[in-house]
Amino acid sequence: MTHPSVIRPADHATYAANKMGKVTLFESPRLLVGLNAFEPGQEHALHAHAGQDKVYHVLEGDGLFLLDGQELRMTAGDLLVAPEGVPHGVRNNGHGRLLVLAVLAPAPAPAHA
Amino acid sequence: MTHPSVIRPADHATYAANKMGKVTLFESPRLLVGLNAFEPGQEHALHAHAGQDKVYHVLEGDGLFLLDGQELRMTAGDLLVAPEGVPHGVRNNGHGRLLVLAVLAPAPAPAHA
Repeated sequence: MTHPSVIRPADHATYAANKMGKVTLFESPRLLVGLNAFEPGQEHALHAHAGQDKVYHVLEGDGLFLLDGQELRMTAGDLLVAPEGVPHGVRNNGHGRLLVLAVLAPAPAPAHA
Repeated sequence: MTHPSVIRPADHATYAANKMGKVTLFESPRLLVGLNAFEPGQEHALHAHAGQDKVYHVLEGDGLFLLDGQELRMTAGDLLVAPEGVPHGVRNNGHGRLLVLAVLAPAPAPAHA
C-alpha cells in the first residue's frame, strides 16, 4: 500500500460523463474508503450489501439518498449509515455536482477471474 | 439499533473540560463511527489497534496528527488513514476546538466485565 499521508478527498474526485465516477482512496480487507462522484442527473441505483455496512458522507453538493424505502435529502456535511442488508442508493437530482465519501466495512471481496 | 436517518455529526459533538470528548454515532461488529472532540490543548495519546484500521476525517478546526513517526498538520476536510498496527494520535495544539470523525473497522470488541 502507499505510505499513509494526508488526503484531501476532493482532489481525487473523478467525474464521468456516462455514469457515477468511482475512486478508491484506501482499501484493506477490513475497510474500503472511496469517492462516489455524481454529475447532475446521475444516480447509483438501489442495492444492498450482505454483511457489509456502508457510511455515506456528503462532501460537496446535495442529493437524494434512498434508504430502506425512505428518500432523504442530504447536503454537504451530512452522514448516513446503510447497515448491512439495507437497500440504499443515491440520486443527484440537483443542478450541481455531488461528491460523496463512501466507507464500506468490511471491504468487498476481490473479484474472481 | 436506532432507525437509520440523516446524521449531522457536529450536532452530536460532546466536549469535556478534562479530556477528549467521545461520542458513538453508529456501531456494529463491522464498524464504529464516532466523534473525537478536542478543546484547545487536549490530545489523544499515541496508540495502535491490532487488526483494526482507523479513518480520521477532520470536521472542524485543525490540529496535529501523529502517524508512525510523522507529525501531520490537518484541517477541516482532511482525511487520514491509520492502518492496523500503525501508531497514531491527535494533538489539538491550536486555539480553537477540533472535531474529528473517527471510523474504526472492525469495531472494538465489547469490553468484558
